[in-house]
Amino acid sequence: MVVLWVAGLALVPIASAEDGYDLWLRYRPVEQPFADRYRSALTQLVIRSESPTLQAARSELQRGLHGLLGITVAAVEGVSQDGALVVGTRRSLPFLAELKLSLPPPGSQGYAIRSATIGGHSALIVTAEDDVGVLYGVFHLLRLLQTRQSLDRLELQQTPAVQRRVLNHWDNLDRSVERGYAGQSIWDWHKLPDAIDPRYVDYARANASLGINGTVLTNVNSNAVSLRPDYLEKAAAVAGALRPYGISVFLTVRFAAPIEIGGLSTADPADPAVKQWWQKKAAEIYRLIPDFGGFLVKANSEGQPGPQDYGRSHADGANMLAAAVAPFGGVVMWRAFVYSNERPDDRAKQAYSEFKPLDGRFSDNVLLQVKNGPIDFQPREPFHPLFGAMPRTPLMLEVQITKEYLGFATHLAYLGTLYEEVLRADTYARGPGSTVAKLITGIAGVANIGSDRNWSGSHFDQANWYAFGRLAWNPAASSADIARDWVRMTFTNDATFVARVVDMMMKSRQAVVDYMTPLGLHHLMAEGHHYGPQPWFDGGKRADWTPVYFHRADAQGIGFDRSASGSNAVAQYAGPVAAQFGDLRRVPEDYLLWFHHVPWSYRMHSGRPLWDELVYRYTHGVDVVSEMRKTWDDVGPLVDAERRDQVAAFLRIQEKEAKWWRDACVAYFQSISQRPIPSGLPPPEHPLDYYKALSFPYAPGN
Amino acid sequence: MVVLWVAGLALVPIASAEDGYDLWLRYRPVEQPFADRYRSALTQLVIRSESPTLQAARSELQRGLHGLLGITVAAVEGVSQDGALVVGTRRSLPFLAELKLSLPPPGSQGYAIRSATIGGHSALIVTAEDDVGVLYGVFHLLRLLQTRQSLDRLELQQTPAVQRRVLNHWDNLDRSVERGYAGQSIWDWHKLPDAIDPRYVDYARANASLGINGTVLTNVNSNAVSLRPDYLEKAAAVAGALRPYGISVFLTVRFAAPIEIGGLSTADPADPAVKQWWQKKAAEIYRLIPDFGGFLVKANSEGQPGPQDYGRSHADGANMLAAAVAPFGGVVMWRAFVYSNERPDDRAKQAYSEFKPLDGRFSDNVLLQVKNGPIDFQPREPFHPLFGAMPRTPLMLEVQITKEYLGFATHLAYLGTLYEEVLRADTYARGPGSTVAKLITGIAGVANIGSDRNWSGSHFDQANWYAFGRLAWNPAASSADIARDWVRMTFTNDATFVARVVDMMMKSRQAVVDYMTPLGLHHLMAEGHHYGPQPWFDGGKRADWTPVYFHRADAQGIGFDRSASGSNAVAQYAGPVAAQFGDLRRVPEDYLLWFHHVPWSYRMHSGRPLWDELVYRYTHGVDVVSEMRKTWDDVGPLVDAERRDQVAAFLRIQEKEAKWWRDACVAYFQSISQRPIPSGLPPPEHPLDYYKALSFPYAPGN
Repeated sequence: MVVLWVAGLALVPIASAEDGYDLWLRYRPVEQPFADRYRSALTQLVIRSESPTLQAARSELQRGLHGLLGITVAAVEGVSQDGALVVGTRRSLPFLAELKLSLPPPGSQGYAIRSATIGGHSALIVTAEDDVGVLYGVFHLLRLLQTRQSLDRLELQQTPAVQRRVLNHWDNLDRSVERGYAGQSIWDWHKLPDAIDPRYVDYARANASLGINGTVLTNVNSNAVSLRPDYLEKAAAVAGALRPYGISVFLTVRFAAPIEIGGLSTADPADPAVKQWWQKKAAEIYRLIPDFGGFLVKANSEGQPGPQDYGRSHADGANMLAAAVAPFGGVVMWRAFVYSNERPDDRAKQAYSEFKPLDGRFSDNVLLQVKNGPIDFQPREPFHPLFGAMPRTPLMLEVQITKEYLGFATHLAYLGTLYEEVLRADTYARGPGSTVAKLITGIAGVANIGSDRNWSGSHFDQANWYAFGRLAWNPAASSADIARDWVRMTFTNDATFVARVVDMMMKSRQAVVDYMTPLGLHHLMAEGHHYGPQPWFDGGKRADWTPVYFHRADAQGIGFDRSASGSNAVAQYAGPVAAQFGDLRRVPEDYLLWFHHVPWSYRMHSGRPLWDELVYRYTHGVDVVSEMRKTWDDVGPLVDAERRDQVAAFLRIQEKEAKWWRDACVAYFQSISQRPIPSGLPPPEHPLDYYKALSFPYAPGN
Repeated sequence: MVVLWVAGLALVPIASAEDGYDLWLRYRPVEQPFADRYRSALTQLVIRSESPTLQAARSELQRGLHGLLGITVAAVEGVSQDGALVVGTRRSLPFLAELKLSLPPPGSQGYAIRSATIGGHSALIVTAEDDVGVLYGVFHLLRLLQTRQSLDRLELQQTPAVQRRVLNHWDNLDRSVERGYAGQSIWDWHKLPDAIDPRYVDYARANASLGINGTVLTNVNSNAVSLRPDYLEKAAAVAGALRPYGISVFLTVRFAAPIEIGGLSTADPADPAVKQWWQKKAAEIYRLIPDFGGFLVKANSEGQPGPQDYGRSHADGANMLAAAVAPFGGVVMWRAFVYSNERPDDRAKQAYSEFKPLDGRFSDNVLLQVKNGPIDFQPREPFHPLFGAMPRTPLMLEVQITKEYLGFATHLAYLGTLYEEVLRADTYARGPGSTVAKLITGIAGVANIGSDRNWSGSHFDQANWYAFGRLAWNPAASSADIARDWVRMTFTNDATFVARVVDMMMKSRQAVVDYMTPLGLHHLMAEGHHYGPQPWFDGGKRADWTPVYFHRADAQGIGFDRSASGSNAVAQYAGPVAAQFGDLRRVPEDYLLWFHHVPWSYRMHSGRPLWDELVYRYTHGVDVVSEMRKTWDDVGPLVDAERRDQVAAFLRIQEKEAKWWRDACVAYFQSISQRPIPSGLPPPEHPLDYYKALSFPYAPGN
């Protein structure tokens, strides 16, 4: 047998394979009839790009139109034919002023894209008050092409609803990433400031395409070394690479830094020497990074030092730092994720208890950064009771983009639905319609970005970075629409592919909830590394780090009673919410076991007893993943082999691990409920001891 | 001002940039007149590829010829026109037997490339006794094209001089890499065995292109977990990806594994239960990996457990493991890198003292793996005295490809010259000409491979992987010729570029020796992380981990007296070598301070006093780096922007750090010698205390 050369084999060099590096900015050639339409709509370009930001906009247009349309649009001084693309501000292109376009106000970072007639010629204008708005508008325009939208009669105007749209990198100086599942930190501190990795610019491009305008380079579990002069020079080099893209750099603060690198004997925020140390440090930073954003602080939480070490309040600590950066326009983002080691109270209540009394006591340039839920980024949590409870304090919402509790990089879980759920949660703080989205001035996403070639550890995890950015810009956007855009830009515009993959994505997070922690269960994951189930875990350092503390399963039932008969955490919510959550008959079943300890025999909406429903939900979660795998088997061939194969491999892992979660949890809870597996549903594959014996000493992300 | 579109800008998508991922297998289009010549020499292809290895050979030919020549050579059943390329063994293509070609013997892994006439047509034959030889021959043929060699009248025959050509990965199961400067381990243990990263195959291709035929996946500072059943399944998945490329997998052994994962109370190699445990473990491994290579062991060294913990010898330990793998054809590579904590003797002598008496006591399938020099991979060491001292024991040479002591990833140091130096060192063990190369049956390189996109942390460090493989195959090859091939394949065939860059590479390692440890100095690097100079370091855990132990500088002079008047380490070498090294007047100046404590005023060959010569050498090292940087400024524009910029940035770092090394060492030694800086040479930029105060808590590779 002679093996024949197969024509059309992918023989191109490896580097041009679809390895995911290009994210949603792939700019692959547009098919007909769209290509011709776009080419005739974009026949000449009028741009003057004196600023680095407008140069970035121009460079992105070059790259995008060349990739999408294979053209180099002729640059001209003014509009001279139909199909002119006009890109700039009224300062860069003074003739735009004559058009008297209505624009989002200066400083809003908004932009407009308008069809117009200039000098008798059809034109498309991308404009804004500020350069960065123009850059955002350029990315929007390119998105229209990438998703095959019409360029006719455009009347787009966009203004971000949330002012601060920030990534939080939990990246350590040794390049390990806490809860990171995409390789090492992209910040190569050792080679900085001398070597600027081209990735830094591509990172900036990706973020600017979403309107993300800030990034915290370092881990909230912080290290004073990052404030040393040599490390500040490194941070300044990163800031320089990001600056043209409208992204300002923040650093985390180790509250004990005045002791650890400053030679002081105290870090007491009331101590004049400490105040002065921070003032000088802030001045030093702003000399190197004039547009430095400010500090993010985790204090008196999980072992981090803080003002309480000196008998001061969170407000005392935050205000001291805020005073240091205020002269330079900086802010302090102070995290509300605290729970005391000593306090015996329900952990879900502690942040509220600690911070609510401080409302009104923070300086103007302090933002309180609150996680989406009161525990810790579980697959589903009710919204955090601090939202709405601190009317005199600007709040930031903190969500995880990285999937610490949602299967790491290999599980496909589209988090657009999670972000949407919390942003639209109604706090009733100012009456009905007081959604979380309306109460916040900023949103922070714990990044899932690392050195992996595809940035996010998996191709589908890129969607969570994307959805975070899009929803941060516009919390009213639909997570399904965002998924559609992302699929089109990332994979293909094939209608069947888009429909089926978006459908899969939209179901995916609920599937994870179901196979991990259905019906309001939470914190069932393995200790320390958070990979896999360990609902049986008890003991260890503290009760409220154990699953048994949270699920409270016993012979009678399961769930954490947070109603008035229990910890009364429901009382931290506004009246209508408290009434709903606190009422066993009215609480949404998604939060049932979060708020109530419920008998195994309790009749669910489905008509099934709770035990049966629990097993049913666990099983359903696995089934959905099997469907997802089959969907990909069907539509995967529409994408390149490299990404298709990785997604397929990861879905096989997810299916296996979903089953592991389901079987381990069902086996464990059955050992407590002593009830039979509902008929028609499979028993766990192994006995409980099998699951208990598994060990994963090198799970990533610790 | 209107900014014009610039024609010819690199507007291609990022992924096809020259990011180094393709290594020396880039297969970029060949220019004329070569392209036409090659196309007419390769008009049809005769190959039958039933085995995975021959399929790999075919696939590489497809990829290579498509990339280089833009052609898909027609596949035919037999030779039917001039320019036939015939690829196979006598088994895959029986008509080859009729040609009665002389070939390297079966099992040798050699191959032949021959011009021939078949059925009246000109043909080029790539053939071997074994499939893997054909694969190696295909890579050789592609190299001829990549380096623009003629395909006329080829009469090539190659047989590897060294049987075992192995990479050692010091990779941990958490993906950290000890002494690794290229990102995380490429082995993604967490996602194995389910996800096979395409990198594994590209890794195999790169190694097969050099003839590397084995790889040790795990760190010599080993972890018993790697022998657990779940981890063996992961290793088996890697082995499956590498197998078609003729690469067998090895694992490191934690000698205490029977205790740590086996539940035994001892790891005494004389204990029957221990022997049985290893026999069962070996059988378990070979069930999963039938071509498993064997074990690499670091025992009783730097805290690792070993047979001496039970009063047994290294031979007892090695033979026990060797007996376990012998039934399956496996080997044990036992490292000779030992030095006792208690022993007060010169550390350079200890491996010899410990192993020499064991010569003849090892089983046949034990290989003793000896580092190139008697200390630890210093920029320059004399060859290890064990070479030639153990005639009844098969020896492996161990060298570092990773640059633990040569500036990490950023310093350009071509190590082909280092490998050549040790391979050609004459031990005189069997009289003159008893080079190290002739005494070894294997060569192991500590890999510099990681998840960085360019695999090696820097583009030029790829050359060290390449040179290691080429010299392992043929220790008689010239490191300059190898550098030339590498430059042509990696960057460009431009004659000026090749000449100037090879010249720079050939000088580079000596430059590092000069700016770090000239004249036989060694072990002056900072404690722990080995980044930067710390010649003043004293104290710590043990004397022979400190620079002062090794340089012994005092008011009179500097150097370690290893002559008969000192530790007499010279006596471990064969007579002529001992006589030369032991004689202050005859010792090469490159080893002067390795073997002698020499007065500061000692007159060197240059006529300068030792002190002046030392400062001169340090200065010269820096100057050479400055020249290298300038060379790159001149010729760098001949390569793509991405690689040009990274190399340029790294050369700037190297220049800065060479100066740092020079200034810190000169300042320190001056504080001892109390002599003036020779006139015309610059004083250190900062006082000594400045250098002492620098700290690098997050240098990579620990």
